[in-house]
Amino acid sequence: MSKTNPGNFFEDFQVGQVIEHATPRTVTDGDRAAYGSIYPTRFAVPSSAVFAASVGLERHPVEELIGFHIAFGKTVPDVSLNAVANLGYAECRFHQPVVPGDTLSTKSEVIGLKQNSNGKSGVVYVRSTATNQRGEVAIEWARWVMVHKRDQDAAAPEAVVPELAKAVDAEDLIVPKGLNFSAYDFTAAGEPHRLADYEVGEKIDHVDGVTLTDSEHQQATRLWQNTAKVHFNSEVRPDGRNLVYGGHIISLARALSFNGLANAQLIAAINGGAHTAPAHAGDTVYAWSEVLDRVEDVAPGVGALRLRLVATKGRDESMTLRGDDGKYAPGVLLDLDYWALIPA
Amino acid sequence: MSKTNPGNFFEDFQVGQVIEHATPRTVTDGDRAAYGSIYPTRFAVPSSAVFAASVGLERHPVEELIGFHIAFGKTVPDVSLNAVANLGYAECRFHQPVVPGDTLSTKSEVIGLKQNSNGKSGVVYVRSTATNQRGEVAIEWARWVMVHKRDQDAAAPEAVVPELAKAVDAEDLIVPKGLNFSAYDFTAAGEPHRLADYEVGEKIDHVDGVTLTDSEHQQATRLWQNTAKVHFNSEVRPDGRNLVYGGHIISLARALSFNGLANAQLIAAINGGAHTAPAHAGDTVYAWSEVLDRVEDVAPGVGALRLRLVATKGRDESMTLRGDDGKYAPGVLLDLDYWALIPA
Amino acid sequence: MSKTNPGNFFEDFQVGQVIEHATPRTVTDGDRAAYGSIYPTRFAVPSSAVFAASVGLERHPVEELIGFHIAFGKTVPDVSLNAVANLGYAECRFHQPVVPGDTLSTKSEVIGLKQNSNGKSGVVYVRSTATNQRGEVAIEWARWVMVHKRDQDAAAPEAVVPELAKAVDAEDLIVPKGLNFSAYDFTAAGEPHRLADYEVGEKIDHVDGVTLTDSEHQQATRLWQNTAKVHFNSEVRPDGRNLVYGGHIISLARALSFNGLANAQLIAAINGGAHTAPAHAGDTVYAWSEVLDRVEDVAPGVGALRLRLVATKGRDESMTLRGDDGKYAPGVLLDLDYWALIPA
Repeated sequence: MSKTNPGNFFEDFQVGQVIEHATPRTVTDGDRAAYGSIYPTRFAVPSSAVFAASVGLERHPVEELIGFHIAFGKTVPDVSLNAVANLGYAECRFHQPVVPGDTLSTKSEVIGLKQNSNGKSGVVYVRSTATNQRGEVAIEWARWVMVHKRDQDAAAPEAVVPELAKAVDAEDLIVPKGLNFSAYDFTAAGEPHRLADYEVGEKIDHVDGVTLTDSEHQQATRLWQNTAKVHFNSEVRPDGRNLVYGGHIISLARALSFNGLANAQLIAAINGGAHTAPAHAGDTVYAWSEVLDRVEDVAPGVGALRLRLVATKGRDESMTLRGDDGKYAPGVLLDLDYWALIPA
Repeated sequence: MSKTNPGNFFEDFQVGQVIEHATPRTVTDGDRAAYGSIYPTRFAVPSSAVFAASVGLERHPVEELIGFHIAFGKTVPDVSLNAVANLGYAECRFHQPVVPGDTLSTKSEVIGLKQNSNGKSGVVYVRSTATNQRGEVAIEWARWVMVHKRDQDAAAPEAVVPELAKAVDAEDLIVPKGLNFSAYDFTAAGEPHRLADYEVGEKIDHVDGVTLTDSEHQQATRLWQNTAKVHFNSEVRPDGRNLVYGGHIISLARALSFNGLANAQLIAAINGGAHTAPAHAGDTVYAWSEVLDRVEDVAPGVGALRLRLVATKGRDESMTLRGDDGKYAPGVLLDLDYWALIPA
Repeated sequence: MSKTNPGNFFEDFQVGQVIEHATPRTVTDGDRAAYGSIYPTRFAVPSSAVFAASVGLERHPVEELIGFHIAFGKTVPDVSLNAVANLGYAECRFHQPVVPGDTLSTKSEVIGLKQNSNGKSGVVYVRSTATNQRGEVAIEWARWVMVHKRDQDAAAPEAVVPELAKAVDAEDLIVPKGLNFSAYDFTAAGEPHRLADYEVGEKIDHVDGVTLTDSEHQQATRLWQNTAKVHFNSEVRPDGRNLVYGGHIISLARALSFNGLANAQLIAAINGGAHTAPAHAGDTVYAWSEVLDRVEDVAPGVGALRLRLVATKGRDESMTLRGDDGKYAPGVLLDLDYWALIPA
């Protein structure tokens, strides 16, 4: 019997099944530095322990996406090693900041299955939960993935498609314990804009672009212990070019969004997301945001902004999400919908 | 109104103006490792906590240039986002070692302004000060930058050109508290040469070369939260090649100088510096040094060496700084003048 | 007199000579993160502080190879700067885990010398020992290197060839203090296979491949303060391509071996190793292992597996080490023989 992990195929999943994912991982300040060397991030809370303390946080958190990528990476060997495509995310909430010294473990429950009509693959829905060394929930999210069948003749399971919220309700957002933006230092944070300065429907061109290199996206993806071959092994790629991990584009776009959204300090939830086109080394990635909603008073001095974050290959000053045909405009790489906490 | 940072133009600066730069940044051991992965540095004080303690330092400092690049990076969005060129540095002094856990903030005072005769740009002189979380000065320096005017018809300000010292006076050098080289371990440090072994006028070819890669200079520059587009976005470059951050060449040359100057442990001051030519991925960088001055007894067992550090593209065994025409010799990338602390 | 290090030539070595290598180096969690960004490693002990504590380790060790590469790197400027080839390793034992905060120093004793018949070079045998800040041995090993003579007319020394064990005896393996696999969590570790599941002679194809990039192998090699020019300076390479540090291939193959050997948690000893072909950026590296021996009861719940770890350029599903001519098969880059600790 082979000792290597073949990953799960569609028929290996059952609704209700719980998978404990391997290799818990301890987060350190080394991850903070590595992240900062790969993404042009400057948000004041993860950048400065002094700033974090000044807004009521007892310990100095790392970027939320560090926790997310690590927690997500754990699920890859069990959930998506044989994936055709990562179809979507929903209901992702950050329950508490991740700080150096935290050890994250992830488990997933299969909450839905639906075989495709072609009989070759199916969609697997999982709800994943990352807990820390105290057994407390750090992050939870749902995602659905199209997975190959091992045996096309295997019987289709009963279709179960979970109802997933289009967006996390503002009332369900979790604010880190102690967070208080009442004495927020806008000068130190880098921009003067507060919640009330953003209008629903407003679009922000984040202006800056970053040209991707192979070693940077691979270093990031490895840091998260994400083992998907397509990112690392150019020999298995039809075009000989490594595919950039979708999460790399999320982190890059989030970092670029500092320029215009410097006070959108913390990610509280991810409502949904689609990786709409592949990215490769040599592509120059830009980002723009659209304000989708805004909510006051989620904590002292703290409001929440619901934002669409769009990454594009090449700059699109028109900030066009979709063409007249309803399809994503050429160049759109990522369409992410999330809630950020910002001074009210 | 756009929410993104357009940077300041020449007419936005006034003599006496003080700018508090955004995003304080906490230094960690992650920065130490990242720095060590990007530059071939081996100086014993930042390399070894045991060595640092043996020379009287209470905590284990990171390389001085880590502090410098972080502190400098803070100023870029306000001072040099619209710069034509970074013209020079002066009067840079390291007031105390930066250690993991320190949070650096930078502010700058405009100390001079001089519009260029073409009316399109002008020179801005600033004195910048980085302080730690206790409000103590960590690093200070002056620099001058040529900055575009937004509006060529704007009136020229009264010209004010500050007097800046050609070099920090040896009496003004600040020695880290407790530093004592009386029981210095030359074997552990890697070379036997002490202050008296270096003659004024002596040149040292540091022999080794490093071929630049795009991802390394970008990772370094991002680590310092330096946002200058020219380093990251090859689409905005006329030749499609990212420009290497000048500070990357400084750190690389300093690291290469270990071979011959291993005991020049700490940088006490930077007297001046010029980035004389651009560098790009694929270039192989070498370094040589010239001893400009030497001073004994700045602290117990501690002397100071004033050094010219020259980085070149391709090795120049003749160590020629300038041609007969007085211009920098072809291949010279950097001409840096600094004071280092060395066993007397 | 030149102040730069010319390295030692064959005639500079004498049997019995002890060399204290320079620049002790403190290990931090930054090294852990950097390592994890460069190698796709997921072994649960170095990955998770919680897992490490659950198997009895008082502090959270870094990967053994981090300690090895740092300790080895120290010897390069004195032992192998003028090496023609690194010929072999033997009798490498890990005496105790290296943890963040440890400062490693290395010294070497010359234990053998044999001039080559061509009179141009000779083989130098050294036994090296890395100690921590408490003076305790962390790692020891022997290696032999072919080194140029400075002067071909220099007299040959008396030939002394030390007897080195073909493999570390199982009884001489050192198990980290407190290590106990009795309550080992196979789910968290990622695979169900224990000592008894591996048969002597069994081969395991680790399946995954990683395409090398120049900046990653250089970042790793610099992290270890390894100064060998061939890795960094493409101008000195006849083909203009940087040569990948052999240790990079060891770490990469070890990380790839997780897939099939996830429970081979700790490296206890390296019996021998040969770098059989050069590797360069663009090569895709795969790995396979062969079980050479297995031993029970080296500690509570702990067994030892002696493994051959082979790295190849391009995947070889036939897992062929040598051709009919007895020579290494084309594509073989590394043949490493080591002992790993695994749940019994």
